[in-house]
Amino acid sequence: MSSPAELDGLRVVLVAARNPLNIGAAARAMSNFGFSYLRVVNPYDVAFREARSAVGAPELLAKAKEYKSVAEAVADCTMVVGTTAMRHRESQQPLHRLEVGARLIRKRLESGRVALVFGSEKVGLSNRDLSHCHWLVRIPTREGHISMNLGQAVAVCLFELVRKPKAIETASPIELATGREVELITTVLLDVLRKSGYVNPGSATATEDKVRRLVRRLQVSLGDAEVFIGMLRQILWKLRTTEGHRT
Amino acid sequence: MSSPAELDGLRVVLVAARNPLNIGAAARAMSNFGFSYLRVVNPYDVAFREARSAVGAPELLAKAKEYKSVAEAVADCTMVVGTTAMRHRESQQPLHRLEVGARLIRKRLESGRVALVFGSEKVGLSNRDLSHCHWLVRIPTREGHISMNLGQAVAVCLFELVRKPKAIETASPIELATGREVELITTVLLDVLRKSGYVNPGSATATEDKVRRLVRRLQVSLGDAEVFIGMLRQILWKLRTTEGHRT
Repeated sequence: MSSPAELDGLRVVLVAARNPLNIGAAARAMSNFGFSYLRVVNPYDVAFREARSAVGAPELLAKAKEYKSVAEAVADCTMVVGTTAMRHRESQQPLHRLEVGARLIRKRLESGRVALVFGSEKVGLSNRDLSHCHWLVRIPTREGHISMNLGQAVAVCLFELVRKPKAIETASPIELATGREVELITTVLLDVLRKSGYVNPGSATATEDKVRRLVRRLQVSLGDAEVFIGMLRQILWKLRTTEGHRT
Repeated sequence: MSSPAELDGLRVVLVAARNPLNIGAAARAMSNFGFSYLRVVNPYDVAFREARSAVGAPELLAKAKEYKSVAEAVADCTMVVGTTAMRHRESQQPLHRLEVGARLIRKRLESGRVALVFGSEKVGLSNRDLSHCHWLVRIPTREGHISMNLGQAVAVCLFELVRKPKAIETASPIELATGREVELITTVLLDVLRKSGYVNPGSATATEDKVRRLVRRLQVSLGDAEVFIGMLRQILWKLRTTEGHRT
């Protein structure tokens, strides 16, 4: 994962966005994943104005910059990457799947600014817009429905930039029961089963082993083990009391 | 990546979704990434009705099923995974980052159905809803802004399920120029530079090498090489003609 300082090198550029909800959604995803710099090229004025009042990422939207052309919006970037739903055969520029493209972007962010450019909802990026891009990236959508919602496309691309390929778990929040508690559950459960007439004296040892393995397969947490032991003791008490009454 | 048949085992479950745009967006992302089965639990009636008429994935929405409870919606699934913005310290259930959780889901999809459950826009999943889940997954948003838009969260989770960790490029659509064309560019460019007076006779060899390296750094495609050669020949012709006039 890139460090926050490196993520700061990314400029998300929305070209001719028409829907304020999409501009707001793009800003929210940026904020969710730790990106700060939004640039908009020729948005519908009303779209940009309404997005600025949208919830989610007000500071990010307030400092978003507006440009008249893609050229101006990417002028300070050392790499310009266009997003597209196109497939290889239609593309006149190098086209990478997002999983590959994101690696290239992260690499470049170590040394310079990168613009990630999204087109308008209806038509995407024009050929003119695309001609400003060093290469293109596509989200691997299925052939039958390639075109994504703008806000969702931004979210997926930014997630791919921050995801940890080798994410490992931080320490589990669940403290598992130790052998002592697990055996205590087993013992009290067996007492309950004996009192309940579940255990056939002829196969008592086999049943005991079966129950012991069963309890271990549960992977009980320490807290749950205490709850189970309390439940079983209560049941055992009730069984003994009832037995006493019968006698 | 799971095969399409395996993806068919996933049930996307939206609990108490309030906004038809979000239900529509979830359906669209499902369609984009090849998932087919949407289940909604207690949606606001109007939300579900309006979503059914939304663009993007009409068939998927038309066959979405409605349930009265989470229990009913996940009854046929062998694994139930809740999505949450929570962090470890608040969770009473195992909680995995999406990168890890998606691996577990893909694995389980090989043998059974998995429900991926999303809560409502405002409050997410309730503790009651969460108690139906075997474990939870969280999208790695930043601490300062953890809560994602519902449609974007669905898109990111589904993308993670279909992404190819070791995606490699299919054959590049760009056929690079070979040594012959690159050298032809170099030769004609050098002719142009000589005619233009750019080459200082005293350092001609050094300049030649410099230009040769420069041209190779361009990584010109075969098609572009032909364009460049045409341009340069035209320039050379013009320079020679002009020279002729001067003489």
